[in-house]
Amino acid sequence: MRIKVITSNPGKMREYAQALEGLGLDVFQGSVPYDEIQADTLEEVVSHGMRGLMMSEDSFIIDDSGLFIDHLNGFPGVYSAYALKTLGNQGVLKIMDGVSERDARFECCIGCKLPGKEPFIVSASCEGAILDAPRGEGGFGFDPIFSSDGVRSFSELGMDEKNAISHRGQAVKKLVQRIKSVEDL
Amino acid sequence: MRIKVITSNPGKMREYAQALEGLGLDVFQGSVPYDEIQADTLEEVVSHGMRGLMMSEDSFIIDDSGLFIDHLNGFPGVYSAYALKTLGNQGVLKIMDGVSERDARFECCIGCKLPGKEPFIVSASCEGAILDAPRGEGGFGFDPIFSSDGVRSFSELGMDEKNAISHRGQAVKKLVQRIKSVEDL
Repeated sequence: MRIKVITSNPGKMREYAQALEGLGLDVFQGSVPYDEIQADTLEEVVSHGMRGLMMSEDSFIIDDSGLFIDHLNGFPGVYSAYALKTLGNQGVLKIMDGVSERDARFECCIGCKLPGKEPFIVSASCEGAILDAPRGEGGFGFDPIFSSDGVRSFSELGMDEKNAISHRGQAVKKLVQRIKSVEDL
Repeated sequence: MRIKVITSNPGKMREYAQALEGLGLDVFQGSVPYDEIQADTLEEVVSHGMRGLMMSEDSFIIDDSGLFIDHLNGFPGVYSAYALKTLGNQGVLKIMDGVSERDARFECCIGCKLPGKEPFIVSASCEGAILDAPRGEGGFGFDPIFSSDGVRSFSELGMDEKNAISHRGQAVKKLVQRIKSVEDL
């Protein structure tokens, strides 16, 4: 079964490919523009996007993810991509300078539509903390400043190790289970 | 002629009322939910919102405004309301701490649909700078940390004085001119 992953982010695409291709799914990257609304939760953004896409697409995967920092009332949250583009990791570290409450979590929400089936959404999160300085070269986005074990950043984990614990890795696992339950692969 | 201003912001509503009611327009506050998309410009957000509203409303005014800080690549921009809610003025000041390049501008984009007429959009901006600390008690939003004259913040201006130079004041002037050109008030 072929599944189009609608994303322009090569880092996300690599994670999906690694997680899904071993299951006999033919994952390919597609580009279909769709509206992302301003909302408080990833689920609202993904749900709205799916409604738009279903008018032209019969099968797709979309996702949205974000970094939610407790001390900043969830900022950057749903607007993580924008905050990364404008402020970057250094900007977020500057806002967090001197702040002792550093709890944060990555969230990932995946919307999936299979041919002839009802659409569904799966979500997962990974609890952690904002580091004092960026660490490591791997990953993408806010990975260098987020740690789930309090020691190494997401950028310092190998892809297998990261997928085992990350928000997206866990959400993809749920996605696979859900696909298996509705499709005979 | 009655015009429904679709906003939940009482500060904006006061500014519209003062600017428009002297012209014989009966301005009232209405609440109609509409989608705000994630986009790089206010014009895209307003334009998309209008398309949605026009499916149920024949006459309305919506607006969107934002603070665009040069040093932060335009942040918080289209997401100013969210940044205000999560980071607040103090959060933005912290990001700007020690930054000498403080140029910023407020932008306002107004979408207007009059009964039986084509919808239109007007925009205006007000150049200024981010202050080192909040000043004054008036206004709302990022007014306390923005100054157009380098001395007083928007919060320290009287409403008449602010309306004469502000992004919204100038956009409302354009709106009034445009309404006059299409309607016999």
